[in-house]
Amino acid sequence: MKTDQHKIEGGVTAPRGFKAASLRAGIKESRKRDDLTLLVSDGPATVAGSFTSNRVKAAPVKLCERRLIWGQAQAVIINAGCANACTGDQGIQDAERMAEVTAELLGIGKNLVFVCSTGTIGIPLPMNKIEAALPSLAKALSPAGGAAAAEAILTTDLVKKESAVSVTIDGKTVTVGGIAKGSGMIAPNMATMLAFITTDAAVDQRSLQGCLSHAVDHSFNRIVVDGDESTNDTVLLLANGAAGNTILQNKHPDWKRFCHAVETVCLDLALKIVKDGEGATKFVTVTVAGAATRHDARVAARSIAKSPLVKTAWNGGDPNWGRILAAIGYSGARVEENRVDITFDSVLAVKDGKAADGASLKDLEAVYARKEFTVAVNLNSGKAEHTVYTCDLSKEYVAINAEYMT
Amino acid sequence: MKTDQHKIEGGVTAPRGFKAASLRAGIKESRKRDDLTLLVSDGPATVAGSFTSNRVKAAPVKLCERRLIWGQAQAVIINAGCANACTGDQGIQDAERMAEVTAELLGIGKNLVFVCSTGTIGIPLPMNKIEAALPSLAKALSPAGGAAAAEAILTTDLVKKESAVSVTIDGKTVTVGGIAKGSGMIAPNMATMLAFITTDAAVDQRSLQGCLSHAVDHSFNRIVVDGDESTNDTVLLLANGAAGNTILQNKHPDWKRFCHAVETVCLDLALKIVKDGEGATKFVTVTVAGAATRHDARVAARSIAKSPLVKTAWNGGDPNWGRILAAIGYSGARVEENRVDITFDSVLAVKDGKAADGASLKDLEAVYARKEFTVAVNLNSGKAEHTVYTCDLSKEYVAINAEYMT
Repeated sequence: MKTDQHKIEGGVTAPRGFKAASLRAGIKESRKRDDLTLLVSDGPATVAGSFTSNRVKAAPVKLCERRLIWGQAQAVIINAGCANACTGDQGIQDAERMAEVTAELLGIGKNLVFVCSTGTIGIPLPMNKIEAALPSLAKALSPAGGAAAAEAILTTDLVKKESAVSVTIDGKTVTVGGIAKGSGMIAPNMATMLAFITTDAAVDQRSLQGCLSHAVDHSFNRIVVDGDESTNDTVLLLANGAAGNTILQNKHPDWKRFCHAVETVCLDLALKIVKDGEGATKFVTVTVAGAATRHDARVAARSIAKSPLVKTAWNGGDPNWGRILAAIGYSGARVEENRVDITFDSVLAVKDGKAADGASLKDLEAVYARKEFTVAVNLNSGKAEHTVYTCDLSKEYVAINAEYMT
Repeated sequence: MKTDQHKIEGGVTAPRGFKAASLRAGIKESRKRDDLTLLVSDGPATVAGSFTSNRVKAAPVKLCERRLIWGQAQAVIINAGCANACTGDQGIQDAERMAEVTAELLGIGKNLVFVCSTGTIGIPLPMNKIEAALPSLAKALSPAGGAAAAEAILTTDLVKKESAVSVTIDGKTVTVGGIAKGSGMIAPNMATMLAFITTDAAVDQRSLQGCLSHAVDHSFNRIVVDGDESTNDTVLLLANGAAGNTILQNKHPDWKRFCHAVETVCLDLALKIVKDGEGATKFVTVTVAGAATRHDARVAARSIAKSPLVKTAWNGGDPNWGRILAAIGYSGARVEENRVDITFDSVLAVKDGKAADGASLKDLEAVYARKEFTVAVNLNSGKAEHTVYTCDLSKEYVAINAEYMT
């Protein structure tokens, strides 16, 4: 596929016709930075979404899932500091109220307002603080507000996560931009992560949903920090048509190029989440090839990426490949031990299920000493493969998560 | 069931007719304590076994599984410092050779000798050191050798694990004793753990296997340290008949009392493993009741016990019950969020899926400050239940496992 796609500065307000604002509403006493964010499109946009697979879903996720049926969105109101999860009927009412007040201030229908929350589970939203802050927030909307929005949605993240690309579609310059938050509770099938992707392309809703689902499957669904899946994960993609292209759908000759741009932004944001993983000191790409089926490849790769023993060995720079083989063995994937090869970057560590001839501990340690490396497994039992992006497990991860709530 | 069962001192040589010995063969240079252990019955014993479900199995596990078909054992040779896993054909030959040399020294058939290994994966056994040490080991056998054997099988464990009970069966005093090792890589379905149970009862082999399988399912299969499953897990139960009872089988009126004694020893050893969990500072019992099926109860309980976010919250004394609800939500168990109740010891934390009225943070923190507490979940969706015993995740766990191999 030929594409003129290139990275540009900015994030969620890089595409034309999007504004953002954020401020500190004081949702969580101890949080000293902005905690309330509003993202608005100049006109109604088609919207696609992807949500947590956790059976315990936060109130705003339930709201977004219902809104998505209508296929349109014009605003997203987002708070940090409180997940509004496990809050019962009150939580649903609060999420609806956030949308209503926002819609009134913007003069749009409430079904065009989506709601996202992240933070502590089980505590009701301080609605008085949120309602008091919303008018100032609406007034502060600006095309320059994207960077501050990227900061305001963070929780334990250390760095903000923005990404944007431009590409020519249907003869017009189209921009795709995004912001994301997440650094702990990151498992395949997303985790405590929120991502907001915007584009000024005009896109048919069903095609847009297909495009987002595919992109999420190849980005946010392939990252692991700790293997915990959250109640609040949400990815939203808004396409407002400000670029003036003919409405794109999945049979358009430029469709793949558009989808590639969306996937680029999603993958960039996903990798930024892993690299900012709670306490992470190493970025590790795990590939499993030669599996009998895609399911086998996926469960084996995820099992390696989730194993506390493998992750602590990465942290310590200890090239203990036995733990990797053990994690494959209990993953549920079909594996014949004496066919398995494992390579650390370019160094063959395991051949036919046992230590490779000539693989010196020194060479293996040299790979594990790197900040970024790849663990490539070949099961030599088929043609399916899968890749997962992950990080190590450090003492700092424990410290961060032992003291989050109180 | 009426039983006169009572705890007694000792472990694997508490029952009549068992001897043990251990010494330092120098299998791993850095290990300064005994690493080779021999357990012998005066005569052939019926034997039952339970092994890892990992598809990558260590050579000694494969040997034990084959031996078990014959139903008899008289000796077990056990080494620490090297798992003899992922060692290919050489590993199988080495395990067979360990059995052969031991059998020659004892003057018994080699099929009566079982072999177990624990330690680093992927490194071949130093057979010269083991063969050189075996004659001295055989000479040192003694009914007083049980305590030293309990020490010699340990790896990262901090304390030795022994247990023994006596009970009257068929008018005879029968003793059941055992030793175990394990503190990391502990998942449901066992983990890097070895357990050796002995009894002087005479027991029919098929009944003995049924008894052991049930006991393992209610003890070693219900403990979680880190969720990693090992390549070497083995539980062996030898019954040598030295008590002089009529051969027990599962229709004997005293059968349940015998099985209860075996289960008592297995559960006692299993709980000692969790309490000695790598870096563990808290012992937590997780119960899930009111599940639609036993499968739902089991996966929900295990998901809680394996969640890094839940385990770090325990470590920090942070009663963040939202993480528990989230772990149930992604477990795969059928759950209706608004029916879930969660109790910390006697304090109701969650009622109908949200914060219980009157549950003060102070009361919840008081429970989490305890060394041992119970997290009791009721899904209120059925009658099935399951219990798992686990521990917290600490910085010390990371420190121990970041530096194990090198």
